[in-house]
Amino acid sequence: MSTTKPKFTLYSFWRSSSAWRVRVILALKGIEYTYVAVPLLEKKQASAEATGRNPMQQVPTLQVDMPDGTTHFINQSLVIIDFLDAMVPEVPIYSKDPFVKAYEQELAHDIASGIQPLQNLNVLADVQKLGDEEAKMAWARKAITKGLVALEAKLTAKPLPNNNKDISPFHACLLPQLYNARRFSVDLAPFPTLLAIEEHCKVLPAFIAADPANQPDTEKP
Amino acid sequence: MSTTKPKFTLYSFWRSSSAWRVRVILALKGIEYTYVAVPLLEKKQASAEATGRNPMQQVPTLQVDMPDGTTHFINQSLVIIDFLDAMVPEVPIYSKDPFVKAYEQELAHDIASGIQPLQNLNVLADVQKLGDEEAKMAWARKAITKGLVALEAKLTAKPLPNNNKDISPFHACLLPQLYNARRFSVDLAPFPTLLAIEEHCKVLPAFIAADPANQPDTEKP
Repeated sequence: MSTTKPKFTLYSFWRSSSAWRVRVILALKGIEYTYVAVPLLEKKQASAEATGRNPMQQVPTLQVDMPDGTTHFINQSLVIIDFLDAMVPEVPIYSKDPFVKAYEQELAHDIASGIQPLQNLNVLADVQKLGDEEAKMAWARKAITKGLVALEAKLTAKPLPNNNKDISPFHACLLPQLYNARRFSVDLAPFPTLLAIEEHCKVLPAFIAADPANQPDTEKP
Repeated sequence: MSTTKPKFTLYSFWRSSSAWRVRVILALKGIEYTYVAVPLLEKKQASAEATGRNPMQQVPTLQVDMPDGTTHFINQSLVIIDFLDAMVPEVPIYSKDPFVKAYEQELAHDIASGIQPLQNLNVLADVQKLGDEEAKMAWARKAITKGLVALEAKLTAKPLPNNNKDISPFHACLLPQLYNARRFSVDLAPFPTLLAIEEHCKVLPAFIAADPANQPDTEKP
């Protein structure tokens, strides 16, 4: 049977903040997809099959099956997001103003390359080997706090369109990052602007659909 | 005096791998710009002025002075690169094929968010505090080697256009990353594909212009 539209499959993990970002954009754009869980705690990302799709041994990976029979794999959350934006432009996720778009991207990169890589599971395991559990927690808190301080300063000095309410990939990055901040007991009181964005987003359907609590592989406590 | 074209200023540091990436693309696109050095070793990125431009206290920052009198600051190397690509599209830096473009971006992100953040100056200083000089070197080697293994595997299985020779932002990320690899004595023998790309690039005018050895603030040994 031939298909007339691309088919999307997301390799994800319920609590992965990078996969979470992509789930927000998929939901926001109303893109149907198949969810395949990669259980990171069982190190399934290091299996031969998963490594073939994603040699960095990370999630997410987007699989795209095209009507012409070709299959493509795309890694890296912000790359996947921009690819989806080009494929399904009907629901915009960036401002049309090139400077505002660059700012929206900059804020997303501040999280995706400025904060998150320093507090992912593998890195924190290495920190714990050098120090101890408390050294690990302090490391994560320092990395997250430094980044949130910068984001709060930026958004106070230069708010995003519609008083920070127009959803962009930055918003899709922020909610997972604040979730992680709480896991590491970061004091969020100094970040009222970021918390207001979270309050606005968390009740929107796309964010509810993407929430780690609502995934096929969610582990209930 | 009014101007008719945007004016560009790059806040850079000669040995910053992130600034180096942007210098490659500026040179490749033939964009004239003013170079302003931010001496990272003197912690000038933490000055009030630099923090105002770049609250993450990083380089690079691109300043854009527009003919209408507005001034804009853009942070994050890959965001700056994509902004420049939109502003000056005459010299393409990505494939027109959306899947190939996504792949070129993915490889750049593998370096920019998968490797580089784990081996920057601040992070390594924190690692040294937990361990010692050798722990710091081992940390950097592990992060770099893991990333280069993934990149070598990807490019062997799926080469970029023109047998990896068409210059993309990935190429602008790779040369700085290999330079850092050598600083941390990473064994590069397992990466013949990456080394071949470096050999091809390093004699091109844009890469020579962007090289850390050729900047206004280069410190001669």
